[in-house]
Amino acid sequence: MMDMDQDPRKRLCFADGRRKVDYVLVYHYRKRSSVRGSPSQHRLSIISNGSYPLGVEEKDQEGGKDEPAEVVVDVGPPDPADGEKIMIREEFEGNLKDAGLEIEHDKENKAHGHAFIRLHAPWQVLSREAEFLKIKVPTKKVRHSRDLFDCQRNLGNSWMSHRYFWPFCRYNIKSKDTFFDNATRSRIVSLYYFAHESSFQPEWYNVIRLLHDEWARYGAFYKYQPVDLIRKYFGEKIGLYFAWLGVYTQLLIPASVVGIIVFFYGWATVETNIPSQEMCDEDQNFTMCPLCDRACDYWHLSTACGTARASHLFDNPATVFFAIFMSLWAAMFLEHWKRRQISLNYSWDLTGMEEEEVHSHTYIEHPRPKYETILLQKRQRKKKNKKNKNETGHEKLTWRDRLPGYLINISSILFMFGMTCSAVFSVIIYRITISALMAMSPDPEVKSNVRVTVTATAVIINLVVILILDEIYGMVAAWLTELEIPKTETNFEERLILKAFLLKFMNAYAPIFYVAFFKGRFAGRPGDYVYVFNDYRMEECAPGGCLIELCIQLSIIMLGKQLIQNNIFEIGIPKLKKLCRTLKDKERAPKEIVEQPGRRQQWHLDYDLEPFDGLTPEYMEMIIQFGFVSLFVASFPLAPLFALLNNVIEIRLDAKKFVTELRRPDAIRAKDIGIWYNILSGLGKFSVIINAFVISFTSDFIPRLVYQYMYSETGTMHGFINHTLSYFNVSNFKPGTVPSISSLGKDITFCRYKDYREPPWSTEPYQFSKQYWSVLAARLGFVILFQNLVITMSMLVAWVIPDVPKNISEQLKKEKTLLVDVFLNEEKEKLQLIQSLFSRDLTQEQSVLSAPSASTEVI
Amino acid sequence: MMDMDQDPRKRLCFADGRRKVDYVLVYHYRKRSSVRGSPSQHRLSIISNGSYPLGVEEKDQEGGKDEPAEVVVDVGPPDPADGEKIMIREEFEGNLKDAGLEIEHDKENKAHGHAFIRLHAPWQVLSREAEFLKIKVPTKKVRHSRDLFDCQRNLGNSWMSHRYFWPFCRYNIKSKDTFFDNATRSRIVSLYYFAHESSFQPEWYNVIRLLHDEWARYGAFYKYQPVDLIRKYFGEKIGLYFAWLGVYTQLLIPASVVGIIVFFYGWATVETNIPSQEMCDEDQNFTMCPLCDRACDYWHLSTACGTARASHLFDNPATVFFAIFMSLWAAMFLEHWKRRQISLNYSWDLTGMEEEEVHSHTYIEHPRPKYETILLQKRQRKKKNKKNKNETGHEKLTWRDRLPGYLINISSILFMFGMTCSAVFSVIIYRITISALMAMSPDPEVKSNVRVTVTATAVIINLVVILILDEIYGMVAAWLTELEIPKTETNFEERLILKAFLLKFMNAYAPIFYVAFFKGRFAGRPGDYVYVFNDYRMEECAPGGCLIELCIQLSIIMLGKQLIQNNIFEIGIPKLKKLCRTLKDKERAPKEIVEQPGRRQQWHLDYDLEPFDGLTPEYMEMIIQFGFVSLFVASFPLAPLFALLNNVIEIRLDAKKFVTELRRPDAIRAKDIGIWYNILSGLGKFSVIINAFVISFTSDFIPRLVYQYMYSETGTMHGFINHTLSYFNVSNFKPGTVPSISSLGKDITFCRYKDYREPPWSTEPYQFSKQYWSVLAARLGFVILFQNLVITMSMLVAWVIPDVPKNISEQLKKEKTLLVDVFLNEEKEKLQLIQSLFSRDLTQEQSVLSAPSASTEVI
Repeated sequence: MMDMDQDPRKRLCFADGRRKVDYVLVYHYRKRSSVRGSPSQHRLSIISNGSYPLGVEEKDQEGGKDEPAEVVVDVGPPDPADGEKIMIREEFEGNLKDAGLEIEHDKENKAHGHAFIRLHAPWQVLSREAEFLKIKVPTKKVRHSRDLFDCQRNLGNSWMSHRYFWPFCRYNIKSKDTFFDNATRSRIVSLYYFAHESSFQPEWYNVIRLLHDEWARYGAFYKYQPVDLIRKYFGEKIGLYFAWLGVYTQLLIPASVVGIIVFFYGWATVETNIPSQEMCDEDQNFTMCPLCDRACDYWHLSTACGTARASHLFDNPATVFFAIFMSLWAAMFLEHWKRRQISLNYSWDLTGMEEEEVHSHTYIEHPRPKYETILLQKRQRKKKNKKNKNETGHEKLTWRDRLPGYLINISSILFMFGMTCSAVFSVIIYRITISALMAMSPDPEVKSNVRVTVTATAVIINLVVILILDEIYGMVAAWLTELEIPKTETNFEERLILKAFLLKFMNAYAPIFYVAFFKGRFAGRPGDYVYVFNDYRMEECAPGGCLIELCIQLSIIMLGKQLIQNNIFEIGIPKLKKLCRTLKDKERAPKEIVEQPGRRQQWHLDYDLEPFDGLTPEYMEMIIQFGFVSLFVASFPLAPLFALLNNVIEIRLDAKKFVTELRRPDAIRAKDIGIWYNILSGLGKFSVIINAFVISFTSDFIPRLVYQYMYSETGTMHGFINHTLSYFNVSNFKPGTVPSISSLGKDITFCRYKDYREPPWSTEPYQFSKQYWSVLAARLGFVILFQNLVITMSMLVAWVIPDVPKNISEQLKKEKTLLVDVFLNEEKEKLQLIQSLFSRDLTQEQSVLSAPSASTEVI
Repeated sequence: MMDMDQDPRKRLCFADGRRKVDYVLVYHYRKRSSVRGSPSQHRLSIISNGSYPLGVEEKDQEGGKDEPAEVVVDVGPPDPADGEKIMIREEFEGNLKDAGLEIEHDKENKAHGHAFIRLHAPWQVLSREAEFLKIKVPTKKVRHSRDLFDCQRNLGNSWMSHRYFWPFCRYNIKSKDTFFDNATRSRIVSLYYFAHESSFQPEWYNVIRLLHDEWARYGAFYKYQPVDLIRKYFGEKIGLYFAWLGVYTQLLIPASVVGIIVFFYGWATVETNIPSQEMCDEDQNFTMCPLCDRACDYWHLSTACGTARASHLFDNPATVFFAIFMSLWAAMFLEHWKRRQISLNYSWDLTGMEEEEVHSHTYIEHPRPKYETILLQKRQRKKKNKKNKNETGHEKLTWRDRLPGYLINISSILFMFGMTCSAVFSVIIYRITISALMAMSPDPEVKSNVRVTVTATAVIINLVVILILDEIYGMVAAWLTELEIPKTETNFEERLILKAFLLKFMNAYAPIFYVAFFKGRFAGRPGDYVYVFNDYRMEECAPGGCLIELCIQLSIIMLGKQLIQNNIFEIGIPKLKKLCRTLKDKERAPKEIVEQPGRRQQWHLDYDLEPFDGLTPEYMEMIIQFGFVSLFVASFPLAPLFALLNNVIEIRLDAKKFVTELRRPDAIRAKDIGIWYNILSGLGKFSVIINAFVISFTSDFIPRLVYQYMYSETGTMHGFINHTLSYFNVSNFKPGTVPSISSLGKDITFCRYKDYREPPWSTEPYQFSKQYWSVLAARLGFVILFQNLVITMSMLVAWVIPDVPKNISEQLKKEKTLLVDVFLNEEKEKLQLIQSLFSRDLTQEQSVLSAPSASTEVI
């Protein structure tokens, strides 16, 4: 790829030409004073944590040193003077030396702004760390590699995680210099991978080409992902993300198919459906009460025929089945993923990984610098007060220290909650006022398009608000988590994810929750409407039911969010950012490039790429999508299909991004997807109750059932529409609310409205009728039944599907049997050997004893 | 204790006087032909499983051999001829030899009926097994015991489970003969402990005396149990049972206190409670419809004043709080136990124990003999059919082979379910007929005591039926599990427990469920009663509500079951059995005792004790009790108190039983309480929904609430009783059901009954009224609210309480830090050593090189 003028093997070594350079530190001195500071820049241990964010990565290359793994850590915090910087650096270097690393300083170009410290990890450091990490090394012919046994005996059962792989043990290795390949070496030293497609590492070049061809290409959308290869190149954490995405997408296929079938069932039965027939039947001629005060006229129900037919597509008995199916699907998805995770753990040699290692990939995770700073401040405060109280210095932050942070947290989250709600409420007000204004318009065309225009614009406003707040909430969550002063990076990440999820979830779902459960329920009744701002009547649902509106809301928000996020946020903005930066760099630092014109190498190219921000945004996007697929699936059976289509593209888009548009991320070990699993499982549980409520309260399923079995005289659905409409005596309209111009109003005494209330001639006019209460009881009963049935079935599904796939548990068992046999055999042979030795010793001893004055030192 | 005529140390050895006897096998030849056969008697591996039931333990002592650990295993199955027996024995011995054990045959008394085979486990077998079992051995001064490191390096994190204990590693032990004490030795060889209070093991004698004094004594009821001692003597599994029982009993204390407070709250408010005042108020004078046809008269509600007041004790707003409290209590109990279990695992060195070891305490659990027999038969069948089909012989039983077993299982369980239901129904019929008969009796005294007599006798019949069916179901469950042909003993136990739990739970709770949810709901209404067998009206609840009846039912069954089980089943029957056996033995075998009159030693005494049946009955009793405490606690707040009182006695009773009345059980390793935890957690979840239904449907809490906030004109409870009573027009009684003799009946046109139905003058007389539906909706709404609230809170409790106690996780962390430091130091020193050696070698080499023709063999 690039022209090489020296033997690359030589240039990767210390001055002695033997010790390999495993790691390079770069620091800036004198020339620059301000560096982009990140709180974790001055962490001092390099062995314990290799996952710090890359703060400064600019460097220039001189002296022909081409390091394979180059990390720039700005050792000193940005503020202190140069002297203090040097002290800190020296302490840092001392620690490195204590850890056994060998250090070579750059002596050639002291005058320049950048100084390089090269590190070499000698054999004993590598082997120590390999033993700590329990790195599995391949070994052939288990039965005869006798020399392994002495070391591995004590590992008992835990280490036999791969048939022909053994945990690293230094005592059986002969070729010390070549034993660890570069990748393992860097994993051991730093757990850090560097450049894409390095020409010094031909094996990586093949991997990246394979990834390009087989994975990061839209044309490969139908193929399984090469998960092992992804893991090899990007590490376990990213490998697990793509594996998870793959399992999720794969399982969306059956869900989509069933969703399409349910949708077509609605399509096929719309002609034979009695309620929608009755609504469209112009002979029935129900005169409905006006939809707004004064400006609106009475209207015939048959004019809402279209929405009634459309709502049957989504509101039919099959959706109940589909909701149950999707709840079980969610349980199955989680179980399936658990199995896949265990399989991956097995084939990736993670089975021996301990719980505590999972997130930290080190033994004792270091506290975050922010935490240590606060702790230091506290100690200093304590010292000052010591004369008064004489307390022993506590070694950690208590809840008292965190109290302000927590308080700000809670109040901010409440504030944000209020903000989301008020955003939703503003859109409601927008809808109410615009529809009122449009209804008052004299133009008949405007009038006829009221509902469509208002709904469409309102949903788009909602979508825009959601997208904007999403970005804001992401930043706020990070700020709030910082205030909590979490002790470790893992802790920080978990809290951040939880908070961000809470806020973004609320943001994305608040308008949907409103439409599903609140819209139209506080509108009042004719003659007693609820008004906001004294003038505007609260909105009602469309005559076809709220479900169709929920469906529109869901589909627009889901599709819009996905399209806009995929196109703008994931493709557009990174490109824009890149463009900006290249422009800026060209403007600011042409001299540096001029210095070495022909030497623009891999790390320069990589430096131009976007830094990797972690997997949180990727997971978040998918989890919010999972919410659309599971939470309100009862109202929108096509959601899995849209999710599937999105994800097929998303996988390749993410793949492209990782392979070509991001700097190569750290290879972080991870055994599972962490807190995301808990969030998924929580969403799955939450979806059960939400779907139960959607079916029983938003859809007309229960009223239809109750009518058919309790009130219908024929046992059929005939007369259902009439049954759901209450009577209102037009003379009871409040003054000023009667339609001003009415084409129908002349000979009307009663108008109808959708509710279960006593008729005007009853003893308790307009009170809730017995039907209302019986339907309510049926609805609540259905919720209980549905929830408990689905929970029980989900638990059954989780219980029936074993967590550990059978082939893996069998393989583990087989390995154990093998092991016991090998040990028994070996034991026997050894015993015989010892006995024969012993008998020889004995004869020798006897002969010695028979000879006078022999010393035992002979043996 | 007993007179010893020889040095006991000598007598525990092989003929060479050096090798210790670890194990003795005894077989009978010629003399006896029938031995009590158990399916697991002819298992051939002694290392893999030490937990077989003791089949035959009679033996006679001759030649002065006093073995410390003596197990009698009848090697041959009872059927085959002597020749085959000898073959099997030889194969068995061969296997033992292959496993590395050394065998000494008894040569002295060939003519006698018993032959002894003595086993010695040599050092390498012990050390191999110790390494397999990862037995922790104490070691002092971690920092300086350098010789440990070579072996332990590879263990990584998993082995550091106790600060100064290291997993066994043979390479650092010097004193091989004395290193393992007797107990560890026997744990390693066989995992089997022998006699109580053996005088050869003075340390055990002290333990047993301590257990007697500190634990197995009613006087010690207020003391914490010496769990570590229990574990030391009886093994982990039994230790965990008592620890669990201790935690449960301890946590019952707060539950009892709250229960008593709730009960006294009811007591204190009964005078001020308006509904019960109204019921007792003779001025209100509600004339109620007769309770039975013809024989019963109209009656005044004020005569039911007593039950109304009594029911207020249990049916007041505090019980709702108590139900929520107890659901959270159950969640907390489970979390608390998890923590305790982890603490115990830590202090008992079980943290390193693998999942698969947990139940089997071996690596690969052997299949049950029954399974192997069936498999053999299948293979033989296959062989016969081979000519036709030419199949490869499958190595396991498929579902096809188990299908008949499963079918019998399902049908038997359904049959048993029907049996339980019919038992409950029979008692209902008994109650209905007896009350009808007694009501028809002319004697006024009989008439007045109808309800009390009938209820009391019926509950007692229920109790007796439950106790009898309990025993039957236990046996049936064992039989059914045998039919399923489970592969391993663990499998067998789990399935047995699940089945037995299902059956016994159903049995114990069926009558309670009936009273809580069904009684009085199918009685019909005046003029339209439901009749069984055409003659007897279905029973109704007492006027005070069904809750008081539920309460009576619960308390009698709970107390009765506990008292009878404790007294009769746990004390009486074992004593009776023992008496029987001693009588039988005396009758049958006086000659054997005559043979050695003075030699009745520890194992003889132990043989007289009851064999240990496993912990299943103990756990089962407690779990059923946990059901009483959690499931219907809303109706009986004193249940935790009664459970507490019972358990305080139960612990000491069980302790006494284990120490003095049972043969010493095998010491089985176990990491947790196994499937019982799942059952407990399932019960906890089930209790939420049951309590929700009890509060909303059985108690009058919701109707009162609805009345107060929807129907009461004053906003108080005044008029509640009137509101709950519907009107019935006496003229609508069916002919023949009108009271025949009536003191009140003359001037009555309307009688009242407890239900929400339309009055006779309505347009739909006797239909459910609007109130009925609104109350039903409120009840169902409450169930949803309660269930989801409590589930969320329980999840919160489980999430807030960390599974691993903080002190333990901190200790583990500290150990890790220490370890890393030690390793780093050691590494450094080693490196220096190597370097100095290397430099010496170098100089030496140089000197050698400088000298001509030196051979490298010198070094």
